[in-house]
This record gives sequence, C-alpha cells and structure tokens, in this order.
Amino acid sequence: MNIGTWEIKEPKFLPDKVEQNGSRFLIANGFMGYRGTMEEFGKNQLVALNMAGLFDKNGDSWRESVNAPNPFYVKVSAGNTELNVLSANISNHEQTLNIKHGIHSRNTVFSVDGANVTVTAERFLSMKRENIAALKYTVSTNKDICLNIETKVDTDIWNIHGNHFTVKDQKDNVLYLETIENKIPVVVYEEVVGATGKNEVSLKAGETFTFVKLCGIYWGEKVAVSAENFKEATSLSFDELLLEHKSVWDSIWNNCDVEIEGDDEAQFAIRYSLYHLNSIAPRNTNKCSIPARGLSGQVYKGAAFWDTEMFMMPFFSFTNADLCKNLAAYRINTIEGAKRKAKEFGFEGAFYAWESHETGDDACTLFNVNDIFTGRPLRTYFKDCQIHVSADVVYGLWEYCRVSGDYSLLFSGGLEMIYQCLYFFYSYAVYKPLSKRFELHNTVGPDEYHERVNNNAFTNRMVKYTADALYNALEYAKENNTAYYEEFCTNHDVSWVENFKENLYVPAPNENQIIEQFDRYFTLEDTDLDTLRSREIMKNEYWGGHGLASNTRILKQADVLMLLNVFRNEYEESVKKANWEFYEPYTEHGSSLSACAYGIVAAGIGMADWAYKYFMKTATVDLTGDTKQYLGDMYIGGTHPAANGGSWNTAVFGFGGVSYTDTTLDISPSLPKHWKNLKFKLLWQGVRLTVSINENEVTVTADKPTNAINVTVNKKEYKF
Amino acid sequence: MNIGTWEIKEPKFLPDKVEQNGSRFLIANGFMGYRGTMEEFGKNQLVALNMAGLFDKNGDSWRESVNAPNPFYVKVSAGNTELNVLSANISNHEQTLNIKHGIHSRNTVFSVDGANVTVTAERFLSMKRENIAALKYTVSTNKDICLNIETKVDTDIWNIHGNHFTVKDQKDNVLYLETIENKIPVVVYEEVVGATGKNEVSLKAGETFTFVKLCGIYWGEKVAVSAENFKEATSLSFDELLLEHKSVWDSIWNNCDVEIEGDDEAQFAIRYSLYHLNSIAPRNTNKCSIPARGLSGQVYKGAAFWDTEMFMMPFFSFTNADLCKNLAAYRINTIEGAKRKAKEFGFEGAFYAWESHETGDDACTLFNVNDIFTGRPLRTYFKDCQIHVSADVVYGLWEYCRVSGDYSLLFSGGLEMIYQCLYFFYSYAVYKPLSKRFELHNTVGPDEYHERVNNNAFTNRMVKYTADALYNALEYAKENNTAYYEEFCTNHDVSWVENFKENLYVPAPNENQIIEQFDRYFTLEDTDLDTLRSREIMKNEYWGGHGLASNTRILKQADVLMLLNVFRNEYEESVKKANWEFYEPYTEHGSSLSACAYGIVAAGIGMADWAYKYFMKTATVDLTGDTKQYLGDMYIGGTHPAANGGSWNTAVFGFGGVSYTDTTLDISPSLPKHWKNLKFKLLWQGVRLTVSINENEVTVTADKPTNAINVTVNKKEYKF
Repeated sequence: MNIGTWEIKEPKFLPDKVEQNGSRFLIANGFMGYRGTMEEFGKNQLVALNMAGLFDKNGDSWRESVNAPNPFYVKVSAGNTELNVLSANISNHEQTLNIKHGIHSRNTVFSVDGANVTVTAERFLSMKRENIAALKYTVSTNKDICLNIETKVDTDIWNIHGNHFTVKDQKDNVLYLETIENKIPVVVYEEVVGATGKNEVSLKAGETFTFVKLCGIYWGEKVAVSAENFKEATSLSFDELLLEHKSVWDSIWNNCDVEIEGDDEAQFAIRYSLYHLNSIAPRNTNKCSIPARGLSGQVYKGAAFWDTEMFMMPFFSFTNADLCKNLAAYRINTIEGAKRKAKEFGFEGAFYAWESHETGDDACTLFNVNDIFTGRPLRTYFKDCQIHVSADVVYGLWEYCRVSGDYSLLFSGGLEMIYQCLYFFYSYAVYKPLSKRFELHNTVGPDEYHERVNNNAFTNRMVKYTADALYNALEYAKENNTAYYEEFCTNHDVSWVENFKENLYVPAPNENQIIEQFDRYFTLEDTDLDTLRSREIMKNEYWGGHGLASNTRILKQADVLMLLNVFRNEYEESVKKANWEFYEPYTEHGSSLSACAYGIVAAGIGMADWAYKYFMKTATVDLTGDTKQYLGDMYIGGTHPAANGGSWNTAVFGFGGVSYTDTTLDISPSLPKHWKNLKFKLLWQGVRLTVSINENEVTVTADKPTNAINVTVNKKEYKF
Repeated sequence: MNIGTWEIKEPKFLPDKVEQNGSRFLIANGFMGYRGTMEEFGKNQLVALNMAGLFDKNGDSWRESVNAPNPFYVKVSAGNTELNVLSANISNHEQTLNIKHGIHSRNTVFSVDGANVTVTAERFLSMKRENIAALKYTVSTNKDICLNIETKVDTDIWNIHGNHFTVKDQKDNVLYLETIENKIPVVVYEEVVGATGKNEVSLKAGETFTFVKLCGIYWGEKVAVSAENFKEATSLSFDELLLEHKSVWDSIWNNCDVEIEGDDEAQFAIRYSLYHLNSIAPRNTNKCSIPARGLSGQVYKGAAFWDTEMFMMPFFSFTNADLCKNLAAYRINTIEGAKRKAKEFGFEGAFYAWESHETGDDACTLFNVNDIFTGRPLRTYFKDCQIHVSADVVYGLWEYCRVSGDYSLLFSGGLEMIYQCLYFFYSYAVYKPLSKRFELHNTVGPDEYHERVNNNAFTNRMVKYTADALYNALEYAKENNTAYYEEFCTNHDVSWVENFKENLYVPAPNENQIIEQFDRYFTLEDTDLDTLRSREIMKNEYWGGHGLASNTRILKQADVLMLLNVFRNEYEESVKKANWEFYEPYTEHGSSLSACAYGIVAAGIGMADWAYKYFMKTATVDLTGDTKQYLGDMYIGGTHPAANGGSWNTAVFGFGGVSYTDTTLDISPSLPKHWKNLKFKLLWQGVRLTVSINENEVTVTADKPTNAINVTVNKKEYKF
C-alpha cells in the first residue's frame, strides 16, 4: 500500500486483503459507512453499507446494526466473462482513498477477449446530504467490445447475525423494506443517469462509457420526507454534489487538522485517524453514538462502548462542540435503558450499557465469547461487571462541559444522569466496617483478562470522579440555576453523596510507587508475553475468562496506565514512570485502546522514544491493519475509532502537553526530537485557538479573541 | 458381592474390581488403614497402608497423606509361576471382610503344575494396639509341590504425588525411614513366626504351611518407644492379639450399634457405615481428624474437610464423646494455620482450611482441578471462597458441647476459636448501606458447581449460627467461668458482635416458599440433568468452574437442603416440602455428601419413600461403589465417611426423629413402613440411652439414670 499526502493507494489487487481493505478504504458520512470493496463484489467480500443508529435482531441471534442493501453494485460482463477482479484477468488495478474529501476510487484494466477494458469508479457518501450515496462509473476499451453492464441495489448482503429486512415493495426504482424486529421502514432510492438497470453497450476502441448513480437511503421518520429529499439531490449533477461534499470536508479540516512537520509518516497517520473520526461521527442527531468499529460493519454489534467517551470525545470536545454535545446527549437520551439494566442486576440508578444501542439497553450478552475448545458460549463479565462504563459516560458529559464552557446539558437531563450514575455506584459499592471505607468489588477494569476483581484502581478512581462531578455539578447548579437546583434536591436524596465521596477507597501507589491494578494482582503468576504465547494450544485462544492470562499478571490493555493517563495531573512523575515500567512488559495491547495511554503518559514524563512508538502504534492501527481479526471464533475486524481518537489525544495531550482546569488551558509541550513543528486547533470554552509548537517557541493564536479565557504556556499565563 | 449379617464377600476374582474392592474391603484402626488388596499385590493395584495425620510433600507436587511401606506383602511361587490372582490360573477365590471385628480374609485356590494350592490369609490392624498390623498366612496343597514363599515390607508403594520417604537404614528386620519434607522418622518392625523372609517350602499333598507376620509401624514421637511397644506385641500370639482386638470392637458396637428389624439390606448398610466410621476415626489423639476418604488412600490429599464436623461428628457426639472431643480439639489445635490462611487472603480471624493437614494450613490449591479439554490447571474457588468451613468447625465444637454437656473445651481454646471464626466472617462480610445489612459475597456453598456467589443461603445461615454460638458461649462463660470471661473480654473487642449478629442477612423463603440458593440463582438456565448430560463432549467433564452446570440451576449436591437439614427445627414443614420438591430434580448428587440431607428432610415431613431411597443411597455408597471415580483427570475413588455419617444421621435424626435443644432431647420418630423396629444408642449429656422404636411405641432406657436429663418423646416429657 502506498501513502500519499492525502491518500492511500493499493497499487494491485491482493485477494487476501479484501477483508482488510474493506475497512481501510472505508468512506462514511456519519449516517452511513461504505466499506472499501469493489463495485462487483457481494456479501462474501463483506460489502456493507452500514447504518448508524439502526439496529435489528433476527430471532435469537445477537442484535446488531443494520447493513442496508448495497446501492453501488455494478456487474460488467463481456460475453460469459465477468469483469470481476476476483476472477478475471487483470493487467492493472489500483484502489485509492482520498482522506481529505472521503472519496473512494478504483481503476482496473481487465484483459478480456484480447481487449484491455478499463473500469474507473469514483464514489462518495455526501457529507452535505447524509442520505445520499453517489457513484460515477466509467468503462473504456482499447478494442471494440460488447459489454453487458448491470447495476442494481443489491439486497443479498452481508450480515453477521442473520437477515434484517423484509422486502415490502419495489417500484419505480424505489425499494421498500422493513426491519424484522421493530418493523422500521427503510427505503432506498436509485437513479441511474447514462445507463439503466441493464445495458448492452457496444464500445469501439478508444470509446468511453460513463454512468452516474445516485442513491438515497432513508429509515424511520426520515422516510416521510425521503422523496423530496432525494429529488432535490437528483437535481444536482455528480460534480455539483461532489463540490458541496468537498466543501463540508474542507471546513471540517479547517477546524481540526493537525500538522506535523518533519515526519510524513506521522503526518499521514494522524490525518488518517482524524479522517475516520470525522467520517463516522453522527453529525445531525443525538440519537446515536459512534460504534466501536465505526461504520465499518456489524462487528461488536454496531454498538457504542466506553470508547466514545474516553477516547473519541476529547477530540470532538476540542474541535466540534456541537457534535460532541450530541454525543453527550445520546447518553442522557438513553438513561432509561441504563436504569433498566441497573434494576435487572439488582441495583439502583443508571448502569449504562457495555454495548449500547438506540434505547440504551445493553446489547452485550452474558456469554459474549465462545470457548474455542468446546465451542460453548463462555460466561463473560463485560456486561455485568464492567461498571466503569457509567463513570465513563459521566466523564464524557462533564469534560464536554468543562472544555466547551457550556453546562446547559446539566439542566436537560445531565445532572440527573450524573446523579443516577453515582447512585448506581452507591448501590453497587460495599462498605467494609473494619477499614471504614467503601470498596467496589466484583468488577472488570479495562483489562478484561481479569474478571470479577475487587478495587480495580481505574474503576474506583472513575467512581470517585463521578462523585466529584456530581458534587461540582450540584455546586454549578446552585450558583447558576438555583430554581433547578432546589427542585432537584427536593426530588433527590443527596444526603449520602458526601459520605460516599469522602470514604470511597482509591488504591494508592505502594512503597515501590506501584499502584496495584486490583486487589491481589501482585499474587498472580509473574510471567511474560512470550511464555504465555508459548502455552497456546490453539490459534485465537481467548486469554480472558479461564484462559491463559487470567491467573497471571499479563494484561490485555492499559489499565493502571489508563488511570495515570486520565488523571495525569494527579500523579507524580516518579509514580508514572514506575508504573509505566512495571506494567508495560505485562501488557499485550490486545485491544487497540491500549497504546495511546502508554504514549500519552510516556510523553508527559520525558520518555519521548517510547511515546513516539506508542503514538505511531495507535495512529497507524487501521493503516497497518495489524490488529486482532478473531477472538476465539468471532470475527472482530473493522476500523478502530478509539485508537484514532487515541492518536489525537497522544499528539495533543501527550506531545502538545495540553491539560486544563475548569478555568485554564495549559500547554506544556514535549515533541519527538525529529518533529520540526506540531500545529493543531483547540476550541477552548468557545474560542478557537491555533497552537503551533516548534523547538524554540509555542505560538497560540485565537480566531476571535475575547480576552476572557485563560491559557498558560509552560505555566506562564496569557489571556485570549 | 454377597452380604451376610456381619460380612461382605466377593466370591470370585474380578480384575476390574481391584481398585473398588481395595476401598470396599478396607480395614483400619484409626491410626492406619489398609486397603482390601491381595497380599501378592503391588503399587499398581493401589495397595496402601495409609497413615492418619502424617503428611508429606515431594517437590512441587501436592502435599498428601503418607502411605507407609506395605507390611503384608507375600509372594508365593511354584517354579516360575507366581501365585498371583492377577496372572495365575485360579479355580476358586473369595475375599471377605468381617465388619464386626475388622478382619480381612481371603481364600484362593491356585491351579499350578497340576496341583491345587490353597492360600488363606487373615489380617487385622489392632484396635487395641494402634501400631500393630497382624497377618496369618496359610498355604496347603492337594499334590506335592515345592513353593518359594517370600514376605517383606514392600517399599515400592503407591503414591499419587510422588515418593515420600528416604530409606535411612534397614537392619534386624527394622526399616528406618524419613519423610521428604519435614524429615519425620518412620520405622517399620517386622517379625515373621514360622517363616523367614524367603522360604523354600516343600509341601506334601494335604500338608499345610502357616506363618504369622506381625509388623509395627511408628512415626514421630512414637518412634522413641517403638522397640518396647513392638516387643510387647510380639510377646502375644496371633490369636491373643486377635482376641483383644475383637474385644475393643465389641465395646465399640455396644455403644453405637443401630439395629433395624425387617430390612436386612438396610441393617447391613447402616452397620457397614458405622464400621467405616469407627475404623478410621483417630482414637488416641487430637492431632488429626478424619480424612474425606477415610484411610483408604491419598485421594483429596488425605485431608480433613467440613465432612468431619457436619456429617461425622453428630454420630461421634452421640456415641463416643471422648473421640468427638478429640475431633473438636483438633480444630482448636490448628487455629494458627487458620489464622495464617485468613491473613494470606487479606482477612482477620481464623479462616479454616478447606483441606486440613496437621498444622491447619490449607492443603487445597487455587488450581484444584484440571481442565479436561486443555489439561491446564483450572482456577477453582474451594480454597478461598468456601468460607462456610469456619462456621462448620464452630458447629462441630458447639454441638459437641451441647450434646455432651461438656463445655470445658471453651476454656482451652474453644471460645477463642469461635471468636476468631466470627471475626473472620466480620472481616469478610460487606455492609450494604441501602439495605442496611451485612452480606456475604464471593462465596462457594456446598454446591461447588456455582462459584463466587453472593449470599448463599446455607453459608449466611451458618455464619449467623457462628454469631449465635459466640453469643451463647460468652453467656456460658460469663455464668460458669467469670474470671475467664472477664479476661477474654479484656483481650478481645466484642463490641461489633451484636451489630453483626443482628444485621446479617439470611435469605428467607420467597412468596413461593422457596429459598433462593444464592443471589440470582433463579435467573440461571432452567434445565434438567439429562439435558446437561447430553451436552457432555468428554467423559468426566468437570461441571463446575466454567463447566456445564455453572450457568444452569443444576447443583452438585444438597445446598438449600443442607440448610433445611442442619436447621430443621427452624423451618415450617411447607417450606421444607416446597424446597425439597424444587431443588431435588436439579440435584446431581455428584457428591456423596448430598443424599443424607434429602433423606433427613424427607423423613421429617412424611415423605417416607423418598427418605428411604436417600437413606439407602447414603448408606450403601461404599457397598455399591456407585460414586464418581474421576473428576476430570483426577482419581477421586476411596471410601466416603461423610456418607457413612450421613446414614447414621438419616437413621437417627431422620427416621428416629431425634432433635435437641440445650436442655432437652426429643424423639419424634417416623419409620419406613416395612421397618418393624429401629433401635439405637444415644449418649445424651453424659447418660447413655437406648432407644427402641416400633409402630406402636418408643422405648427409652438409660444405662445409669441420673434423673437430671430431659427427654421428650413426641413432645411428651420424661426424666432420665
């Protein structure tokens, strides 16, 4: 694969990269994502038009996001020979993704009947009109040839857990569908300019045949206005649609681009990360969040995880406050599902879904992995014990408020959400009379290889964060919205909050400065990754559950390091260093969420080489495709938006050294030696700043200075 | 196998019953047990002279009880033909165990060189002299034959976890050994009368050759007096030794026999059970307890479990108070091990060993079963979560005190033990502020297929029992030993006891009268045993851990029923019936501890047929040998003294309807219809009673009436 300034290119056809390139060359517009597959591909090549926020369940199978029918299907044949890269003779092939404007293109020269037939196709999902998918398809030849060109909306599509549609009707190039479970209407409009559904095309040598295809995909309420909406789109030419699409992308980049001088590889990797984040984030709704695999398919059920709040929302809070506010509001909107989950497990308050769909009910099952040795579903504890998710959700909301300076969400459900999350923790916590403290038992931290642990340091600290957030949010309300505050306190018992907040146990560094990941972690077998790997009997063994890692110190992903990352201003450099060095050799990085924490913490304590290594690991995860594709017998491929977010976090919080209090943004950078300059944008409490850092100086400029916000650079104070 | 009045007989040689008959025909005298194998057998036939209270650990292997060298080894050959039932031609063979007097005999007719050579051997382990093993071996022939007869103390012996001896010396028919781990001296004396180690014997047709072999086995402190002790024994003839041995057995039966008229099968089964209990209980020491597999080998590491207190001590408390007191004292003596265990897991007080050896340290490992699919050690939670053992230990002591009326142990460590056990539970418990109660989380109840559960009803109730016992023991001390009480209260903080006692949660029957086995048990898959079995992939799969039963309602053994059994006076008949009927179909009875609880509870609520079925199940467990022989790849065969205890409990507490308060013994019987009479002995607060029950009347007689003890029969009061 070749990497240009704003594009990646696969210069030949590699059959065993079809699956990976489907994710790598993804285009998306927040409403839908289309995998980087060829127009002639079908479900076996994992073609998917994955929908954001639309979910369905077929029978007893897992509930998952819905793949719409494929609007871009094109089949070209010469006689009995199908011009399909999988089967035909090809003399040239390249696949390109332009990440500046989210445009996918392919160029293939087929050798057929002594002719070279060239297929060129360009497609995009409109950033301006989220329902619109556009394709321009061109065929040319160097010898006279007769071709049969077929295009359609392909309903025979890839699904992991069964079909999700009933076809209700199809007429006038409109396909009417309904989902299985909730009978949600879905319509797909198709308009082909320059060709009809099936075309016999006789091409002379040197001639070119081109057609443009527009599709409109609508579901739910949007169906009512779909005809009008689609009609409006079809009034524009392909080029006009492309132009407005690019113009939206230009403004996105204008607010979020990160520029790295002196390191082309890092430059591309960070932009590729931001490309994905911007592509997959819902731009016009607060009814869904960002799935853990973006819009690259149905893996992980298309659900949103803590990934959004802890890894992606920092980027959006500093670059696109409106979008970020929507993400925060999504959790407020789904609180009833979280309350149902708490009740289901015998607790109070709001226990947010480990895998969240549109209602907030948990798509995660109690048996979320198959035992590879027996094929039996394995009881996992993601759903019922990974309680930190309720704190992560609070983190997302509260940090949005702090960064944006916009606390209005508090008064439209935000305060209620924070309260219910803390109340959940209070009902989950246990009080130990001998040590006179609250503890959190039977939890799973970020390191999912160790289930049902007590006092996971990260979890306990996040619960403490939640308590502090509630305390501060109540204080904010008292000062800024007294009426709301008073009514809230009338309707809510807050008498327990302070006692819980003050007496909640948070594991501290021990005499060697090490924070024990959870109670008795130090008693586990002290081994290393190579030894563990050498014990594997089968490929893709799950190391958690009763697997190889569970009784050892080997961890799946940053856990104490995640704590040190999130609360990086709280711990001494010596503590960070000691824990980094202690835990790093035990860490598998079996999750793409792991690298950035190691990178950010390393950058903050002068370990520049390590920081760079982990920055590149998180920033290139979807470029190299060097991630786990299977967990046991379960396919887990796709894109990794949390890692994409992690690369921005590492660049800005790590190398850029950005941190903040409620009132002040600090920039204390520490760049990799070979970086000549690092430049990024920060929307800080309503003011858009541009920060440019080189060896000698830090330049901060504000778009529209207000003289009301505080910025310190290496602790020196400025006003903007 | 044939069953006589006081004996079992295997009338022919069954090669595939060698292992099972080794346990079935066991002889033992509390100090040592000898498996029912032939004299010519070796380690591959699991010959074992298993020692009580002597343990050893070889390298990293599991620590286990020690098998002494085999004193009874005899090899007889005619030319190149060894007279071994395994390989030789035999025309007749029978193996007999006399359970009245613990005598093992065999009679085999070998066909060799045209001759019928008859071997007869009789052996016993002296009940009078615990170190002495005696064998009389006779050979006769119907044709002249020349035999080579070899006898020795065989040091090439069966061990599950490696060799446990270094041979230090061997001279003058004395073998000097030392254990590997603690270098404990062991000596084995051998004296053969009528033959030397190797004998060429020319037998004429009709002639008989007989020799007698006495061996003395000593270890530890006893070694110092061993020469004298053995010499004294050798001054007696085989018949004299046998006579005094039988005389001890006669007095044992005199105090404990249970007589059932109208059911020969039941009669034998209960006596066979009592034979085992009396054989294996340590009679002269309080330094060891009764292992879970008796003295039948090293299975379960030769360790004592809760089996002793909850299943066997009731029998001893009512038939042999001195022996019972020793068993209670064993736990007091091992409290330091229990304190170390509590500390090891981060708790206070005394956390008794799940598998207890001589120091009270836990022989149980954290990986106590192998995963049959991977061969990997499986993390089990017997050791760290089966906390009820500390309550069971208190139960054994406190019920001994109540039945015997002898509370003296309280003032030699007993009160301290009860306190430390409760303090352990207090440190283990969690307080839930919303429900304002103490709960016990992360436990394993008797049903080990469900690990790490919260609020196991049996466990919580046993902890409540412990709290009540401490409260009552303190009251007793205050009244009867004020000085001791006052000093105790000076040295111990008891301020927390009442709060803990009053606010400890004990699950109660729900609206359907069912007691939930533990929190969320009702949410588990509702399936049946046949379905579960049909899911098995491999033989001997372990159903616990992540195995087949764990996520279903299927239980290994009586759990709620154990609660209803132990606290049978607390629950309404309707509750007992509802729970019996609810849980019985789910119960695998995968442990021999299970049947008696179902039997006793059934007997108490008029379900006589079911009671009888479960009585016979527990009483015949070692007769039928119908128990699990393997758990995964681990051999778990041997005898089942807890089930043996369970049969007495079912006969006396179930059919006999015996119950008691601190001051009164009640007898409210309910016999199986076909039983004409049930007669048993009860030592109640120092007075030995004989109870005889038939359809029409209950007769109670006291050996030496004091007019100071209260007995009610069907609630009608009497004094004895």
